[in-house]
Amino acid sequence: MPFFAQLKRVLFGQPIATKQAHTERLPKRYGLAVFSSDALSSVAYATEEVQLILKLAGTIGAGIAYYNKLVPIVFVLGFLLVIIAISYYQTIHAYPEGGGSYSVSKSNLGHGLGRIAGAALLIDYILTVAVSVSAGVAALVSAVPAIHGYEIHVAVGAVVFITFLNLRGAKESGAIFAIPTYAFIVGTLTMGIYGFAMGVGKPPIPPPLVPMEEGYDIVMWFLLLKAFAASCTALTGIEAISNGVQAFKKPEAENASKTLIVMVVILFTMFFFVSWCAHHYGILPQEPGTPGYQTVMAQIAGAVFGANSFGFYFLQFSTVGILFLAANTAYADFPRLSSLLARDGILPRVLQSQGDRLVFNNGILVLTAAAILLILGFRADTHLLVPLYAIGVFTAFTLSQSGMVVRWLKLGRAWSLPFVLNLIGAIMTGIVSISIALTKFEDGAWVTIFALGGVYLMFHLINKHYKYLARELSIEPTDQIPQAETAVMLLVPRMHKGILQAIAYAQALSTDVRAMHVTLDQKSVGQIKKDWTTFGADIPLVILESPYRSLVDPILEYVDQAIEENPDLMVTVIVPQAMPKYPWHSLLHSNAATSIKRALGSRKNVVVTNVRYFLS
Amino acid sequence: MPFFAQLKRVLFGQPIATKQAHTERLPKRYGLAVFSSDALSSVAYATEEVQLILKLAGTIGAGIAYYNKLVPIVFVLGFLLVIIAISYYQTIHAYPEGGGSYSVSKSNLGHGLGRIAGAALLIDYILTVAVSVSAGVAALVSAVPAIHGYEIHVAVGAVVFITFLNLRGAKESGAIFAIPTYAFIVGTLTMGIYGFAMGVGKPPIPPPLVPMEEGYDIVMWFLLLKAFAASCTALTGIEAISNGVQAFKKPEAENASKTLIVMVVILFTMFFFVSWCAHHYGILPQEPGTPGYQTVMAQIAGAVFGANSFGFYFLQFSTVGILFLAANTAYADFPRLSSLLARDGILPRVLQSQGDRLVFNNGILVLTAAAILLILGFRADTHLLVPLYAIGVFTAFTLSQSGMVVRWLKLGRAWSLPFVLNLIGAIMTGIVSISIALTKFEDGAWVTIFALGGVYLMFHLINKHYKYLARELSIEPTDQIPQAETAVMLLVPRMHKGILQAIAYAQALSTDVRAMHVTLDQKSVGQIKKDWTTFGADIPLVILESPYRSLVDPILEYVDQAIEENPDLMVTVIVPQAMPKYPWHSLLHSNAATSIKRALGSRKNVVVTNVRYFLS
Repeated sequence: MPFFAQLKRVLFGQPIATKQAHTERLPKRYGLAVFSSDALSSVAYATEEVQLILKLAGTIGAGIAYYNKLVPIVFVLGFLLVIIAISYYQTIHAYPEGGGSYSVSKSNLGHGLGRIAGAALLIDYILTVAVSVSAGVAALVSAVPAIHGYEIHVAVGAVVFITFLNLRGAKESGAIFAIPTYAFIVGTLTMGIYGFAMGVGKPPIPPPLVPMEEGYDIVMWFLLLKAFAASCTALTGIEAISNGVQAFKKPEAENASKTLIVMVVILFTMFFFVSWCAHHYGILPQEPGTPGYQTVMAQIAGAVFGANSFGFYFLQFSTVGILFLAANTAYADFPRLSSLLARDGILPRVLQSQGDRLVFNNGILVLTAAAILLILGFRADTHLLVPLYAIGVFTAFTLSQSGMVVRWLKLGRAWSLPFVLNLIGAIMTGIVSISIALTKFEDGAWVTIFALGGVYLMFHLINKHYKYLARELSIEPTDQIPQAETAVMLLVPRMHKGILQAIAYAQALSTDVRAMHVTLDQKSVGQIKKDWTTFGADIPLVILESPYRSLVDPILEYVDQAIEENPDLMVTVIVPQAMPKYPWHSLLHSNAATSIKRALGSRKNVVVTNVRYFLS
Repeated sequence: MPFFAQLKRVLFGQPIATKQAHTERLPKRYGLAVFSSDALSSVAYATEEVQLILKLAGTIGAGIAYYNKLVPIVFVLGFLLVIIAISYYQTIHAYPEGGGSYSVSKSNLGHGLGRIAGAALLIDYILTVAVSVSAGVAALVSAVPAIHGYEIHVAVGAVVFITFLNLRGAKESGAIFAIPTYAFIVGTLTMGIYGFAMGVGKPPIPPPLVPMEEGYDIVMWFLLLKAFAASCTALTGIEAISNGVQAFKKPEAENASKTLIVMVVILFTMFFFVSWCAHHYGILPQEPGTPGYQTVMAQIAGAVFGANSFGFYFLQFSTVGILFLAANTAYADFPRLSSLLARDGILPRVLQSQGDRLVFNNGILVLTAAAILLILGFRADTHLLVPLYAIGVFTAFTLSQSGMVVRWLKLGRAWSLPFVLNLIGAIMTGIVSISIALTKFEDGAWVTIFALGGVYLMFHLINKHYKYLARELSIEPTDQIPQAETAVMLLVPRMHKGILQAIAYAQALSTDVRAMHVTLDQKSVGQIKKDWTTFGADIPLVILESPYRSLVDPILEYVDQAIEENPDLMVTVIVPQAMPKYPWHSLLHSNAATSIKRALGSRKNVVVTNVRYFLS
């Protein structure tokens, strides 16, 4: 086995046959772990993102009143969460075979809106990787301050490691997913409930807010709306269960929807307690990238469990674990969706095929490249990345709910309860989408909106090309195989052993064989003519003059002339090529074949073939 | 004409036919300008290099005595110059067809020493570019202090510009060379003689030497030898005339040798007056790279002509001009020598051929890459580069003179006057070579010595490969054209219009045609079978299962099996390939041909051919 093939086997393992494809079904407890890491891990940063906005309101003279809006916002979000959960509950039962936003939108709202949903999801998955890994690194730096200054390196390293695992195609093992997910749930709830129990009834500790001197003329409700928009990051990943219904044990829809309810309850509970503690203990977000930076979660853990306690480290490391797991889920979703979009002819077909380890290698590599670019561009800073994030998710939510609304209409169930619930969902998520777009536009949402437009345009252009290709290549039963006459032209730079096999091959291919010799050196003409009478096997030798010392131009001219004389002629140009034992030896050999191939590349009736002779 | 071809024409001009090759002969006055820029331009930095060493001696307690050795060293060098000039005078008459050090060494001393001379010259030409351009930039920064800090940029820019001119193949026009060369001679001699006339008889101005407190235990004669070794840079380039005898008007040897004598006289005169002025006006080298740095030449010009006078600027700009010209001469010499070495089978053959503008493009590009690497590595600092320089030149001198000695012996003229003169030359230059190697070893000569060994080893390995190739490929009149049976295997991913032409082509090539379909998707098998009965033209369709979803592996297996059954079989695998209108569309097409070609690359009896169909 060649070296690179061996290396590939060692790194990525033996190939897996198609029929060994993974069909294990998950019980609910593992299904929760597999599909909820993305949603639940949002708790690790959502509170901090809301507080970032409220801290601004608190410092510019509006006083503590706005700062106190954190817990109320959590309850508003809880209301939205219930609506979205009900909507997805319905989607799961309506599409038990798996109802991703793309499929639901496409089949109910048509190709155009389906593509927007597809574009929103692709961008969302890329951001899931970038945001989750960045937040994971922030959690890590809170526990291990020594890595301060290397945040970007660690984040990129983590993405590369996750990529490697996914290229190996590690099977989605419920057990492995279960550990960090349940550890995070246990750690967060313990911290939240313990902190609540200790703090409730006592007056809250006031935050160290320093109001600015001058009263800024700022629209406070805009800030509140913005804070609410920030809280919506807690809802990212909630749709994962509805995509993966078929991974659950039978009855799939039943089990999936029960898991959804459990997940939503856990999500809200964690978010509430974390936010309550943050507010009650007067904790404020710190400036990321400064030495000694700790996330809000880490500060709460320090306040509740004590700094450097077991509880503190347990929470931090399980947070890192679930966030990296969340990034990993995008590695299942992005390539699967890309493959679906490629099959629908709106992404390049190379994204459609699975590699020999049953994973979509190309999709994985595209995701990695995009995520690393984002991490580098935004310096692995969660605060900078989050404003880009929620907009894609909510666009997909809105389209998915709207698709469900249209579905009920088509089924003649207008104004039934499911219709009304989905309608409320669609309207609410639509309003939230617009709020996010408006309030976060300047902070980075514009990047996502432009990217959305760009990806949509790309879908359109790719689809146009494939349609054109299908038209061009479509075949009718009346189409005939064209008549072809062949002529073989054999390039003979000088006579040597390798040429003999090329002569044999040329003679076997056609009765019309001509040998071509380009005279780069007048002195060699006599020799080649003499050699050819000995070995030339009655093949006519054409001597081509090259006044400008080009090897390619005289061949081009001769071939063009032959085609002009007989337009039906298929010309095969045979270029003998020495194959050295070691690849680097090819630096010492002329590379005529490549340049001739390139030069003849645009001729329709010409095929350039290398006949190689191997050096022992 | 395609875009890149058009761009090439605009940048590099129309092709030049072989028969238009430049054959203009030069009169002596132009011959001096063309061949002496390298040697004469050394005056621009040689004095400074000697002073650098003497300054050190002056400061470490040995007092002014050693500093005063500058002019005596110039006279010792003058003696060496006369010996070398006489040697080359003899070489010119012995080899009127052009006696480069490589040819003279090879034909008299054998291949081994010839190769050492060749390696020394190649390295010398690269250093000529790096040193001359760096010294040119130092002269420029002395006149235009504003470019301080951009020395490396300007140097690299100059090399790129010279490269561009040489790729265009600007004819060596005597008139263009004449301007900066004669301007430099006039400027330098005016400055030197005027400075001498004003200063002679008056006591010299003492240099601002500050002796160090502690007396270092340094071997003073070693410093003196080192200073002398530094002065030898003044002799670089002196061999140019003997390489180019055939460029002179008839009688060539006569005219060339007269030009050599004139050049040597001018060189010594300039070097003497510049060094005398430097010493008499108490001028010392400054630290390069500091703001306000001026070369010793510029300081003399400032002292003699006055700062910012016309004379000052005239001298500085003509210095820049002759130094860049000197770099340019290496662009004629390096590619020409490379081509010679390639013809002798010790450098890759790609260096042998001339491009369509009659220049050796590949050699030019190798020289540019090496020179730029040197300039970047040594920060365009003449003082750092010069210690690398002279060793290669003197190695070539020594070998060339030794070759002449052996030649006289072979001609039976032992102890004749020419023999004795060349013997003295060989011994003297040999001693100087060793002196330079020893005194400058630490300062950088080791780089050159290792490079010399490396290039020599490269010559050896390349030659070994070509010899092996010649053995492998040598043909005997008894060699027979082998018998070849052909089978054509046509890859059919799905049925479309492009396949029809491929079918026609396959049928024209062979009577044994098989179609191969790899089932990546079980659903498509029925379709392809149905289509094949309609369009397949009685060609058998082989369905290849692919349990691991690989396109390549089943093809490999099938081809291997066919060859195993019939080892004489030449298999042609035809891969239909869509050729999109725009190259970037190929991202949207599968690239099966490339991976199949790579996979089958090591099979001896297999030819992989693309039959392309063009999208209109």
